[in-house]
Amino acid sequence: MKILNSELNIVTKNNLELVNITSDIEKFVVESKIKNGFLTLFVPHATAAIIVNEDEEGLKSDFFKIPKILKQAELLVGRFAHNKIDNNAAGHLAASIAGPSTQFIIKDGKLIRGQWQDIFFFELDGPREKRQVLMQVMGE
Amino acid sequence: MKILNSELNIVTKNNLELVNITSDIEKFVVESKIKNGFLTLFVPHATAAIIVNEDEEGLKSDFFKIPKILKQAELLVGRFAHNKIDNNAAGHLAASIAGPSTQFIIKDGKLIRGQWQDIFFFELDGPREKRQVLMQVMGE
Amino acid sequence: MKILNSELNIVTKNNLELVNITSDIEKFVVESKIKNGFLTLFVPHATAAIIVNEDEEGLKSDFFKIPKILKQAELLVGRFAHNKIDNNAAGHLAASIAGPSTQFIIKDGKLIRGQWQDIFFFELDGPREKRQVLMQVMGE
Repeated sequence: MKILNSELNIVTKNNLELVNITSDIEKFVVESKIKNGFLTLFVPHATAAIIVNEDEEGLKSDFFKIPKILKQAELLVGRFAHNKIDNNAAGHLAASIAGPSTQFIIKDGKLIRGQWQDIFFFELDGPREKRQVLMQVMGE
Repeated sequence: MKILNSELNIVTKNNLELVNITSDIEKFVVESKIKNGFLTLFVPHATAAIIVNEDEEGLKSDFFKIPKILKQAELLVGRFAHNKIDNNAAGHLAASIAGPSTQFIIKDGKLIRGQWQDIFFFELDGPREKRQVLMQVMGE
Repeated sequence: MKILNSELNIVTKNNLELVNITSDIEKFVVESKIKNGFLTLFVPHATAAIIVNEDEEGLKSDFFKIPKILKQAELLVGRFAHNKIDNNAAGHLAASIAGPSTQFIIKDGKLIRGQWQDIFFFELDGPREKRQVLMQVMGE
């Protein structure tokens, strides 16, 4: 049984952005030579998340509507208090609900994912120069 | 330390459906003979998720309101672009926010869950004939 | 490779509450003496979750708006059926979407988290006297 760690460094250019990191992650899994085990992804940020879904332009624009829906909800429940400090409460809430970690199963040396499952870094408060995704594989 | 993989095959009959898979998963954990470790569940689909909550009929109908809430939100933020291709954007968004993976702790040979925690496959774009839940246990 | 389990016992005093459990969790990781591995947190409740985000008072009050947003949504999609049994459907839905489990990577004997990532137990249907967070570390 072995454990290997690595990380991706990501620069985002927009306030909301989906960066497809599937090939980087699959490269790490293949190079780890782990045949049977699992991968943990962890985002060490309060306004970013991992999203696993289809790489289709329309759908990606729909993901950007999640913080917009939260901003519309402010009209119903009162202005988010964090916006007085930093105008990014919707990004914090969306990131927290999605959660910082995601796991994938590795079988026969391959990361298992569905036909319509690409892996994205979801920037919710960009642009940012120093975003990261931590990767850890464990297995044999 | 050992690693064992298996999968559940699921057929759904409705557009929205909650399939209680608790007993199938517990059977896999018991048969693995792992006494101390953990279980990873992974859904290889872009419009389905795992939900862990109470098996109560009213509550299950409330879960079906999650995509309905997203559809109401479209009236506020503009029609989801993915619906031009495939009328299931709300299912993609709900699945992505829930995330494809969930972990459970195994102690004394048993999967640990709370009194009100059953495990459901949440179909968000059915009916479908070939849904799966991947299961992996690691431990000793 | 070793596996260690423990748990936190939590008492909540309010209907909605965020309990910062970061130092308790870091103490468990340090005492486990695991240098390289990962931590799983699991909440064995249907109306509570783990939230990883910034410990800022305004933002914490914004998290309490998540169930309030779901209650506003009831006006659009019809009253939640579970509320006829137990007036906490919004808490069940919020807990389910957040999910019961979260993972952290351990490197050099330390739990890895971002500068703005504290770990909270999110009470969604309190007050409760017997809440728990299960903790498991695996590694070497």
